[in-house]
Amino acid sequence: MRNPQQVAVVGAGVVGLAVAWRAASAGYRVTVFDPDPGCSASWVAGGMLAPVTEAWPGEEDVLELGEESLRRWPDFAAELGDVGLSTAGTVVAALDRGDADQLDVLAGYLSRAGREAERVTGRELRKLEPGLGSVRSGLLVPGDLAVDNRRLLRLLRAKAGAEFVEAEVTGLAGDHVETGEGIRAFDAVVLAAGARSGRLHPALADVVRPVKGEILRLRPRRGSLPPPGRTVRAVVEGRPVYLVPRADGELVVGATQYEAGFDTAVTARGVRELLEAAERVFPSVAEYELAETAAGLRASSVDNLPVLGELPDGVYAAAGHHRNGLLLAPVTADAVLAWLAGRPVPDWAVPASPDRLRREPVDAR
Amino acid sequence: MRNPQQVAVVGAGVVGLAVAWRAASAGYRVTVFDPDPGCSASWVAGGMLAPVTEAWPGEEDVLELGEESLRRWPDFAAELGDVGLSTAGTVVAALDRGDADQLDVLAGYLSRAGREAERVTGRELRKLEPGLGSVRSGLLVPGDLAVDNRRLLRLLRAKAGAEFVEAEVTGLAGDHVETGEGIRAFDAVVLAAGARSGRLHPALADVVRPVKGEILRLRPRRGSLPPPGRTVRAVVEGRPVYLVPRADGELVVGATQYEAGFDTAVTARGVRELLEAAERVFPSVAEYELAETAAGLRASSVDNLPVLGELPDGVYAAAGHHRNGLLLAPVTADAVLAWLAGRPVPDWAVPASPDRLRREPVDAR
Repeated sequence: MRNPQQVAVVGAGVVGLAVAWRAASAGYRVTVFDPDPGCSASWVAGGMLAPVTEAWPGEEDVLELGEESLRRWPDFAAELGDVGLSTAGTVVAALDRGDADQLDVLAGYLSRAGREAERVTGRELRKLEPGLGSVRSGLLVPGDLAVDNRRLLRLLRAKAGAEFVEAEVTGLAGDHVETGEGIRAFDAVVLAAGARSGRLHPALADVVRPVKGEILRLRPRRGSLPPPGRTVRAVVEGRPVYLVPRADGELVVGATQYEAGFDTAVTARGVRELLEAAERVFPSVAEYELAETAAGLRASSVDNLPVLGELPDGVYAAAGHHRNGLLLAPVTADAVLAWLAGRPVPDWAVPASPDRLRREPVDAR
Repeated sequence: MRNPQQVAVVGAGVVGLAVAWRAASAGYRVTVFDPDPGCSASWVAGGMLAPVTEAWPGEEDVLELGEESLRRWPDFAAELGDVGLSTAGTVVAALDRGDADQLDVLAGYLSRAGREAERVTGRELRKLEPGLGSVRSGLLVPGDLAVDNRRLLRLLRAKAGAEFVEAEVTGLAGDHVETGEGIRAFDAVVLAAGARSGRLHPALADVVRPVKGEILRLRPRRGSLPPPGRTVRAVVEGRPVYLVPRADGELVVGATQYEAGFDTAVTARGVRELLEAAERVFPSVAEYELAETAAGLRASSVDNLPVLGELPDGVYAAAGHHRNGLLLAPVTADAVLAWLAGRPVPDWAVPASPDRLRREPVDAR
């Protein structure tokens, strides 16, 4: 493509903002469209940057793309300012024998793949995190980080250097964006609208779908035990739970997962299950203040990889980041910048190409 | 006392506002002091007007005062406007044999006392409220009502006809009220500051204390069962729970009880216990939206009766209403109006007199 001057970014979650910031820094004139900029999945999220603890045999592409992005995170964060990047690492706690067996599988896989992870006994784990409840064993993953997602989003927005349009996008193509106020022409259009991306572009209609998640924000109170020092992950009654401590004392507990369309109501059951799970993992949270409950919509893709690349009509897709929008924001911005500059697709971005989705022409159905 | 013109009311919860409204209507010039008028226990409350289901052998004075006030409620409500008074009645559900035994005691007591209450089987109860979970038996109390407490408070405030001062009261006596802005003289001073009353007057210091309560506000969602038609009460794992339906579809679930001083943080445990209990009583609330969590401070008294009457320094105490502030607001206002007019203490107010608290002079300790 010729060197574009005017770039539209549809979506003001972490992916859209990171793209806007990087593009504006590179000299493009950037316009960001979002009807509701404070309601992104990344605003609700826990803030884990955890490709290793999220890894699973068979999903090597996901792990490698995540690590590619994680390597960029320290510089990405340092350029923005104090985004509350925590380098204390992550622990995975096994509460029962079934969990411990799963951790054995994960630890074996990571060891064969040469990733840093240490299997520890329950006693060793509780020495590191004395507030944990009854745990059978654990896994230490020192390299998985966490970020204060809300601080990050505020800084990205403040530093984006873009024009912000708070309007619903009703149509888009490679050369324009349409809202209720009319059509605006652009040299390049990036679709980073998270779960809504599937509604905004036919090529993503069956590919990106919303997966609702609920989350809690808790605060220790006078006399209660402080939060864990590290991110703690576990599985309670078949449901994954994580506890992510923030530098300001807040503890984020997440997250439920439902296929519920575009509904973002916080449900009684979701909150009850998260509270039960958190108390099981770290009993003293029972005494904590429940400061906030919230729900967001992850943009799930068919294969847990995002969709990064140009669609047939010239729109650049930066969507389908599922649980990894925060982690993958730096690498996504880099992929978009390469495309804007007319450089070839980076090797690490190839597995995420939209080409993988077009096995058969749509007409052949 | 001589006929006062200028009346101060300290506290803008339901008791203070009801007193202010009635006094202003009677021609007094009324000033209401409250630093935080939207944070009263009555704002957080469920809105039950339930002297009969709250009754217990040995607490006849509480029952009789409650019924005295309940009789006034229909007129009190009608004068104010649409306060969402529900006359659908209350059911008490027994979930297990222990609960059923307790209901037998209550039903026997009410029957001997000539109050209307009907013991029903679990099957009969579920016929009336099909959304109930597994219930062993129940008690129907048609006369116990409920009010939309927030609508009531908004109307009381709008119609009070009083001057409102949003300032912390730092001192008071029978002839003045002191705030950070200075001392103002009054002909009569009514102390209706709920849990804070014990801090504001030495005669109430050991008498009125805060009892924290947490509450949830839930909303049915598309496809979920509607809320019960009546107020539903039960005891789950030793903790009382109530579900109060509102005309607008909201369901209020309460309430925890703690002795926690003046702390009003909503705790993780409190919310989790309320959600568990509500789901046990009415399973489909699991699908409801959790719209709000809140905590308030009931003004508990030593004997579950409020303190209504003149204190030694001439201040009129209208405090210590515990769980019954909304129920007892009409009768409390009437007691204050009698006092302002120099009429004798009504018979029904005698048991609530502060005289009962002064068994020994303070000096004799």
